[in-house]
Amino acid sequence: MVDPTPFHRNIPEPALRRLPWYLAYVKLLKKQGESYVSSTQIAKKINVSPTQIAKDLSYVNISGKTRVGYEIDQLINVLEEFLGFRYVHKAVLFGVGSLGAALLADSGLEQYGLKILAGFDVKDAVVNTMINHIPVYHANEFVERNTKTIKAEIGVLTVPADIAQQTADFLIEGGIRGIWNFTPFRIRVPEGIVLQNTSIYAHLAVMFNRLKQLPE
Amino acid sequence: MVDPTPFHRNIPEPALRRLPWYLAYVKLLKKQGESYVSSTQIAKKINVSPTQIAKDLSYVNISGKTRVGYEIDQLINVLEEFLGFRYVHKAVLFGVGSLGAALLADSGLEQYGLKILAGFDVKDAVVNTMINHIPVYHANEFVERNTKTIKAEIGVLTVPADIAQQTADFLIEGGIRGIWNFTPFRIRVPEGIVLQNTSIYAHLAVMFNRLKQLPE
Repeated sequence: MVDPTPFHRNIPEPALRRLPWYLAYVKLLKKQGESYVSSTQIAKKINVSPTQIAKDLSYVNISGKTRVGYEIDQLINVLEEFLGFRYVHKAVLFGVGSLGAALLADSGLEQYGLKILAGFDVKDAVVNTMINHIPVYHANEFVERNTKTIKAEIGVLTVPADIAQQTADFLIEGGIRGIWNFTPFRIRVPEGIVLQNTSIYAHLAVMFNRLKQLPE
Repeated sequence: MVDPTPFHRNIPEPALRRLPWYLAYVKLLKKQGESYVSSTQIAKKINVSPTQIAKDLSYVNISGKTRVGYEIDQLINVLEEFLGFRYVHKAVLFGVGSLGAALLADSGLEQYGLKILAGFDVKDAVVNTMINHIPVYHANEFVERNTKTIKAEIGVLTVPADIAQQTADFLIEGGIRGIWNFTPFRIRVPEGIVLQNTSIYAHLAVMFNRLKQLPE
C-alpha cells in the first residue's frame, strides 16, 4: 500500500478537489502573459485563504520563491501531472443512452486524461455503431473484449439507475478498477475498487431548491 | 426571505443531496412490484443509517406508517416534487463546445426538470445551427433574447475556463439567477445569485489519484 510517488501521499480529498481550481486560474494568468503567481494572488480570486493554498500546494512537487511566488509554467506542469491529466487512463462507457452518448461525444475528457475506447449497450439501435469515432459493442462482449484487447481500468456508468448495481458488478468482473458513476443510484463496490459518484441530477436538485428560496 | 412552502425550510445541503439516492432506489423497488418501503430497508441498500434517512425524509411532506413504512408511489411523488424534477426550469447554455453540445444533446436533463431553450456561442460553425432541436444563437443576442422571449432563469456554463467569469457576469446581466458552472474555473457571483459547481474534471482527478494508490 506504499505509494511509489511520495508527493501523492496523504492528500486529503478537499485539497485534491481544490487543485483544479488553481490550475484553471494559473492557466488564465499564463494566457494573460504572467510568469509568476503568489498564493495571495490566487487566494484573492478563488476565495480560499493563502495559507490553505500554500498548504494544498505543499502536496505537489513545487516550491514558491520568496516575494515572486510560483513560476507559472512549472506550476501548470506539476499540477497537470499530479492530477493525472497528462497520463492516458483507458476507459469504457456502459449505457449509450442520452447522457452516455453525450459523454462519448465530449472530446474534452481526453484532454483531462480520460480516453474512452469503447461504449457498451444492449440496444440494437446503438450496438455496432460509432459515436465520435468510438465503437459501441454489445454488453455481452465486454468481459472478453476488455480482458483481451481494450484493457480499460475505468468504467463510466451511464446506464438506467435500476440496473446500475448489476452493471457495476459486471464491470468489476471484466477487470475495471475504478467506476465513475453518473447514475443517481448509490452503488456499492468491494474494497480495492475506486468509486467516484458524479450525480449531476443531485446538483440540479440543489440548484432548484436554492432558486426557490431566493426572494422574488 | 421566508420560504412560502414550509417543507423546503432549512433542509441542509447534505440531506438534499441524499434525497435523489432514495428516489432512485424506491423507483427501482416500484419497478420490482413493491408497494411499501421502510427506512431500514433503504438504509441497507444506500449505506446511510435508518435514523438519518428518517430525518432526511422529515423535510419532505411524507410520513411513514408503523411497521410498513412509506407508501412507494407517494414517496416517489413527493420526492420528485420536492427536488424540483416535476417543474420545468427554463435554462440557456453558454459555450457550445464539446461538453456544451453534449449537454444540449442530453434529453435526460429535461426529465429532471431542466429545459434548455437555447445555446449561445460566438463561433460561426455553431451559431444559427440546431442541436437536438435546440437553436444556437450568437452570444451578442443573449440579453435581448432572454429578457424579451426566452426568460430563462438558469444558465449552464460550458465556456472555456478563461472566459468563465466574464460570461457569468454577462449571464447575470441578462437576467439569469442560477448558474450551473461546469468549467473548472472558480467563478464568483453576487449575493442573490445561485451558483452550482459541477467540476467533472475535478472528479476525474480524484478518481485518478485514488486509482494510483491502489495496490498493484
